[in-house]
Parts: sequence; C-alpha cells; structure tokens
Amino acid sequence: MTLPRKHLFEMPEGVIYLDGNSLGPLPKGVAAAVQQAVTAEWGGELIRGWNKSGWMAQPARVGNRIAGMIGAPVGSVVMGDTLSIKVFQALSAGLAMRPERRVILSDTGNFPSDLYMAEGLVRLKDAGFELRTVPHEEVMAAIDESVAVVMLTQVGYSTGKMHDMAAVTAQAHAAGAVMLWDLAHSAGALEVDLAGSNCEFAVGCTYKYLNGGPGAPAFIYVRADLIDKVEPSLAGWLGHDAPFAFDLNYRPARSIDRMRVGTPPVLQMTALEAALSVWDGITMAEVRAASLRLSELFIREVEARCPALTLNSPREGAQRGSQVAFTYQHGYAAMQALIDRGVIGDFRAPNVMRFGFTPLFLDEADVIAAVDVMADVLDNRLWDKPEYKAAKGVT
Amino acid sequence: MTLPRKHLFEMPEGVIYLDGNSLGPLPKGVAAAVQQAVTAEWGGELIRGWNKSGWMAQPARVGNRIAGMIGAPVGSVVMGDTLSIKVFQALSAGLAMRPERRVILSDTGNFPSDLYMAEGLVRLKDAGFELRTVPHEEVMAAIDESVAVVMLTQVGYSTGKMHDMAAVTAQAHAAGAVMLWDLAHSAGALEVDLAGSNCEFAVGCTYKYLNGGPGAPAFIYVRADLIDKVEPSLAGWLGHDAPFAFDLNYRPARSIDRMRVGTPPVLQMTALEAALSVWDGITMAEVRAASLRLSELFIREVEARCPALTLNSPREGAQRGSQVAFTYQHGYAAMQALIDRGVIGDFRAPNVMRFGFTPLFLDEADVIAAVDVMADVLDNRLWDKPEYKAAKGVT
Repeated sequence: MTLPRKHLFEMPEGVIYLDGNSLGPLPKGVAAAVQQAVTAEWGGELIRGWNKSGWMAQPARVGNRIAGMIGAPVGSVVMGDTLSIKVFQALSAGLAMRPERRVILSDTGNFPSDLYMAEGLVRLKDAGFELRTVPHEEVMAAIDESVAVVMLTQVGYSTGKMHDMAAVTAQAHAAGAVMLWDLAHSAGALEVDLAGSNCEFAVGCTYKYLNGGPGAPAFIYVRADLIDKVEPSLAGWLGHDAPFAFDLNYRPARSIDRMRVGTPPVLQMTALEAALSVWDGITMAEVRAASLRLSELFIREVEARCPALTLNSPREGAQRGSQVAFTYQHGYAAMQALIDRGVIGDFRAPNVMRFGFTPLFLDEADVIAAVDVMADVLDNRLWDKPEYKAAKGVT
Repeated sequence: MTLPRKHLFEMPEGVIYLDGNSLGPLPKGVAAAVQQAVTAEWGGELIRGWNKSGWMAQPARVGNRIAGMIGAPVGSVVMGDTLSIKVFQALSAGLAMRPERRVILSDTGNFPSDLYMAEGLVRLKDAGFELRTVPHEEVMAAIDESVAVVMLTQVGYSTGKMHDMAAVTAQAHAAGAVMLWDLAHSAGALEVDLAGSNCEFAVGCTYKYLNGGPGAPAFIYVRADLIDKVEPSLAGWLGHDAPFAFDLNYRPARSIDRMRVGTPPVLQMTALEAALSVWDGITMAEVRAASLRLSELFIREVEARCPALTLNSPREGAQRGSQVAFTYQHGYAAMQALIDRGVIGDFRAPNVMRFGFTPLFLDEADVIAAVDVMADVLDNRLWDKPEYKAAKGVT
C-alpha cells in the first residue's frame, strides 16, 4: 500500500492537521480496541485480565513492535511511564556506568523536560554532579573525558534540526561517555538505526508520530549487551525478576522488563497497540521520503507566498526532521487564526510557528491547501480584523 | 442512597468479586466516558483537546475529588504516574527536608515496590544513606533521631494489619522525622484524615478501591504549608511553573502541580474521573462500617465452616483494613479452584488467601454464598479431583 493512507484515520471534517508531531490523530480501530479493553477485559475478566487478556506481557509486546521501527532488536524495548521518567531512568543508569565522571552533556535545543529531569537527578546526587548544556553546533567539541552521559534529542523540538546519530555516538564513545538519544521527534518520522549507532540508551514518546493518543506510554531502549547489567534507579516491582514472589529485596529482571516500574496503563497501552497497525506494510524509508517531499513543497510555497515568515529550520532536508518551523513576529496570533480556519499547527514561544509533516495522512494537496489559508490569513492579517477580534472576544 | 449500590457496576454473571482490593470492577458510565474521550476529544479536537476538553487541568481536578475522600484540602492532591513513582517523589522530597539525616525507616510488611523504590533512591544518593526495615510492631520503637523519613503503608497489603496513622505520625514528628503514608489499601476503604494526622506526604493508587481501571494513575498529597517548598526530584515539564514558556531551567509550579512529571494519561484519567461518581452521596464512615460488618461475618463463617484455614489478619476490626487474609497450606490450588467457581479472591505467596470486602458492590448474601463455595471446595479438596485436574491440564 502506498502513502498516504488517510482512510486509516478518523479525521474531523475541514481540518488540515499539521500537528501530528504534537499529538497524532486517531487511527480507526482504536476506539473499538479500547472499548473492548474496558468492557470485555476489565469489566468481564476483572483481575484475571492480567493474564487472560495479556496485560502483563503488553509492555514488552508493544515494545517489540516499536523496536522494529527504530532499528532495535526484539527484546530491547519496553513501554511504560512518561518520556520524562524514561529519561531519568536512562540518565541514572548511564551515570552508574561511569562512576568516576560527573557531567551530563546536552544541548540548549533539547526539550526542556529532558534538561529538567537531568537537573533533578543532579540535585539528588552528591555535590559535584553537573548538567552542562551547549548550543547544538558545539556538542561535538564539548564531548570530552569529563562527560559521563551525552543526552540529546535527535530532532530538535522547536527547529527540527537534527543531530547525526552515528557521528555523535561515535564521538561520545571515543571520549568514553555513554550515549542517550531521545527519539520523541524521530520514532515514526525517520529511519532510525539504534543498534547500528551502538548507543547505550534511547527513549521516546508515542503520542506524536506513533499516534498512541493523549498521554500514551513512553518507551525505553537498552543496548542488548547491557540489558542484564544496567541498574534501574526507579526500581519498581514490575521490574523485579519475580514480582509476585513479593521479596523484600529488589532483584532486577534478567530482561528489558527491568526498566519497567509500576502497574502499566492498560487502557492507554491498548490504544497504542491498536494504533500501531496503521504502519503495517510501510517502511520508514518510504515515510521519510514522503515527509521530505511534503516539507520541501511547504517551504517553497510558504517562502513564495508568505514573505513575512522566516524559515527557522535547516533548509537541507537531511539536517531536518519531519517538521518545519518559521518565525514570525505575530506568530501566536497568526497561529490562532490559522487554527480557526482549520489549519492546525502549533506555536512555540517566543515566535515559532511549527508545522509537522506526517505522510501517513497528509498529501501534496493538503500542503497547498494549507498554504492557501496561510497566505490569506497573513495577507489580510486576519487577527487584526474587528470581526475576528469580536468573535474571539478580544477588545 | 444506602449500600450496596451494585447497580452502579458492570459485574459479570456468576461472579462474587472479593478482589476489589486488587482491581476494582468497572463502574457503569466509564465505558461511555472513555469512548467520548477517544472519539470526540482525541479524534475530534486533536491537539486542541488539551484546553478545550480540559485535559491539562484534569490531574488537579481529579486530585481534588480524591482529596475529599482522604481528609485532604482542595489543592493538596494531584494525579499522575504510578504509585511507585509517587513513592519515589515523596521520599526524595522528604530526604531533602532533612539533609543531616540518612535513614528511611519502613516495615517488613510494606508493599515490596515501596521498599524497592527506596532502595533505588538510596543507591542514587551518596554512600551513607540507608533503608532500614523492622517488623510492623517494632516501628514505633525504631523511630529515632537518625530517621529522615518514616515510610509506611497504612494497611498492610498481605495481612490487612493497620498502623495508627495519628500515633505513628506524632512519633515521627517527635523525633524530627518526615512522615510518608502509602494509602494503597486505605483510599476508598477507610476514613482517612490526612490533614488531621499532620503527615507531610501521602501517596496512593486508584485501581483498587477507587475502581479507576487497570493501570489507573496514582495520587500524591503534600501538606498545605509545604506545597510551595518541596523539591520535586522528578522534575518534569508539567511540574514547571510555566511549562509552555520552554525555559531551559526548572522552576517548580507554585501549587500541587509541581508534583506532576510528564504528559498525563488522559484516557486512564478519564476512566478514573468517571469511576469516581459511584461515591456520590456516600461517606467513608458508611463504607467503613459496612466493610467491617462484611469482613466480620466472613471471618465468623470461614472459621466455622472451613477449619483448615487460619486467620492471618488482626481479629479486631479497628486494627484491620478492608481485607481479610487466611493462610492455608494448599492456598494457591484452593484459590485457583475458588476462582474457577466464580469466587474471586487472590493469592499472595507463600500461602495467603486474601479476600477484599468492598461494600459498594458486596452484601451479606454475597459473603454467605462465597463461604458456601469455599466450604465445598475445601471439604472436597476440589483441586485434587481427577476431573478438575483433567480440566486444568494438570497431570
């Protein structure tokens, strides 16, 4: 089957959705799967659902499905918690692997929550630990032998700017550091070769390109040779080797399950599992190629027809993820007006208008139609019009 | 309305459910609420759901609903993550409040995940930190001036044995320690007076007595005077004072929202919020009184009719939560046979048969009917019968 496959999604009428990079739309089949989990599994099986309905094994089963999309082997990915929690787990495990080092290195374009979680971890540790951030382009030079863990988001959340996963990982390893990749804007958007990169850890969320729904669980990847060795600091009972032995002491599972913490969110996990079927028969190479075609068309059209906007993403496709950012002085107001007209992107402070190109449900005609609306909104400064202000209750 | 209110639950035919203390049954109205969240909110509003459908404010809104059930003021409880994560947050915040002390004190009857999370936190900290566990009855004597945080589950998960919340908290405070209560087996089962106890922190889960569904989010309580002071070590972006400013540095929210971490599980939170309506118009005093009547009837009947079982819970109601445990040499096999006959309790290693009395959907007739089945199963050692073994595929 070729792209797009719009018929696999429930998309509201009159919407061009350029925000699948924040919250993916609802795939068909998800509502029925969730309903089944609520009524037949929870309602009908009650506590027996943990075994009969496969809830207990679901985090590893769904993890395997995602592993196949990010170049990871079976048994190296498990689901649970939120991306922030998984960042913390990977970071603390990484620090434990380099006990003589004290520095977490990241970049200032990283998603703030990753930096906050690192700050929180530093506060928990002895004095002397440090989160060090440098601009994107200075990361390679900043990797030195003081660094315990290099933590980067492959595709910057605001600009879409990409790091070269293989090159940065090699540099980290050359300096003796552990490498952690955040794939929030990569999984489902790009070809990712985790095993090939040789990085120790990766984490990601599933509510963006993977269309898992609001608050869908996160994933964590551990390199195969480390799975039996890493120390999960968030040592919850479902990461125990024998959770139902109720031992008083923690003994981590001898599998990727050791990165589990508490009781998994079964209803969210079911939504995600059902949502993943929209990827059947598609390769990430096809998705990436289509996404680049769409985003290049968008950049060309916007630059030709909306001259007030300034491209804030790399122009070269190979250096850009699946989203395109423009800066504009009136970006917030303009984005509100666009959304009112059915063209949904998002705004990132202070002046970034961000648009995601998710080729499972977008095509060239959508891009042209979106820019038609943008040009009209911007040419006419719709947000300044008295009738628009009146409708919004703005005085 | 009086108890029970069975008509508010979707209960399968032929089941007497004595495991609401592990996973509460499905309240009516939950399936429709979840369906609405999936199709109209996620499907129809897409990213706009965070504001239009109230997803962003939901963790605090649901927290307030639960606050009213555990003696906590408005604005002191927020939802998210799992109980294990919330234990970690409260413990690390508690240690930060007593920087000169190094000991977390708990008891050996605590739920293992609480102990594992404490162990994990100790491993992250400098050498010198320690998790110290003593038997239930030695806790009071073990609280001394070395203790930074006393962490206890009010109602023991296996035996149902209760700590005296007011007395233990007073003892902790007299020794200068911080008090953390785990309400996993209390919230929705007993009258809890958190504010009156003066404890600093409490945590709990919502998939047991609160019927929030498999993997429902946890809650955390912080005493009012500390909310603006506690240090959330798991410093996620949704705990930030201004998450959408995307500041590079963490600055905690000036409200209970600072204990939030990452993106909340909207579908699970919606299931929980809908599930809470079964409590409308009921006081926890009524629930507790009914639960004691049911559990006392159960103990009396079992002791009269199933002499092979030995009571493993306190006989005195005031010292017992809402569950009753019996030990039995063949407990595992007997519980399997009971479940096959529709009487669903659970088994806890090594030999504990555990039964929960949740008076929202159980009455005296259910208790008698359950013991009728138990007496038959035990008198006839059903699990030893060739036909039973054949049906189970046991040779």
